[in-house]
Amino acid sequence: MATPKMTDSSCSIARSLGVLGERWAFLILREALTGSTRFAQFRDALGIAPDILTARLATLVGHGVMTREPYQEPSSRTRYEYHLTPAGRELHIALGSLQQWGDTYLPWPDGPTVQRRTRDGGRPVHVGFIDDRGQEVSPDDVVTVKTAAYPA
Amino acid sequence: MATPKMTDSSCSIARSLGVLGERWAFLILREALTGSTRFAQFRDALGIAPDILTARLATLVGHGVMTREPYQEPSSRTRYEYHLTPAGRELHIALGSLQQWGDTYLPWPDGPTVQRRTRDGGRPVHVGFIDDRGQEVSPDDVVTVKTAAYPA
Repeated sequence: MATPKMTDSSCSIARSLGVLGERWAFLILREALTGSTRFAQFRDALGIAPDILTARLATLVGHGVMTREPYQEPSSRTRYEYHLTPAGRELHIALGSLQQWGDTYLPWPDGPTVQRRTRDGGRPVHVGFIDDRGQEVSPDDVVTVKTAAYPA
Repeated sequence: MATPKMTDSSCSIARSLGVLGERWAFLILREALTGSTRFAQFRDALGIAPDILTARLATLVGHGVMTREPYQEPSSRTRYEYHLTPAGRELHIALGSLQQWGDTYLPWPDGPTVQRRTRDGGRPVHVGFIDDRGQEVSPDDVVTVKTAAYPA
């Protein structure tokens, strides 16, 4: 999935999946959205081989989804922390929509493994279409309109 | 991406990408959301080999995302139409979120190729988090809470 060809596509869905569609990339993002920042945290949570984790983190940094910052603990060598950029935090909506769809239409026997709630107050949230007046719109009432930039 | 293993995962994002994450699968869904229903329409719009299109449509039907219905035109053999199920139409939100992200953070030089609007009135729509009072919530104000079903 994560080929340069896809991120060169005129289709923005293809470009997004070029970054997000690789299995480890979205598992790393899922961990980052729950607060993981350090190489060892990602490695331990995902059970991923260190060389693959290094490569996938470099791709996410290269696409502007995460930043890489040095840190140093006493009498240790320099290590790196990875933080989501605004672009990476905005992926929360895309990951949330995929999660919501999977929980509804491909349910797991034990139920959803995570829920999304407001930081203040813990109100349940879902992902949906919103119009320019702030009103939720059903997917059936949304149409796709091609622009002049649409390939002939 | 589209291995049985992924659709067996306890992670609903992995299950969703197991259906959606294959390049042709989401391009077929994109065409279906703009109104294509017939084999020849998908084939001509996507330039996909017929045997691959047949296989991908069968996968989408098998996952309950599309239905396959026979139709017949005068003095032609029976052909099939493919229609999105409610589960398939609900994928509009996930595809919309990926598109919105790609248009914002991986922009195409000519601008977005499609826009999403309300069916009645043509108001612009975007994808976002919505709380149980119908209020939009910023991704930064949404937290992920693990449930009892979360794998140990």
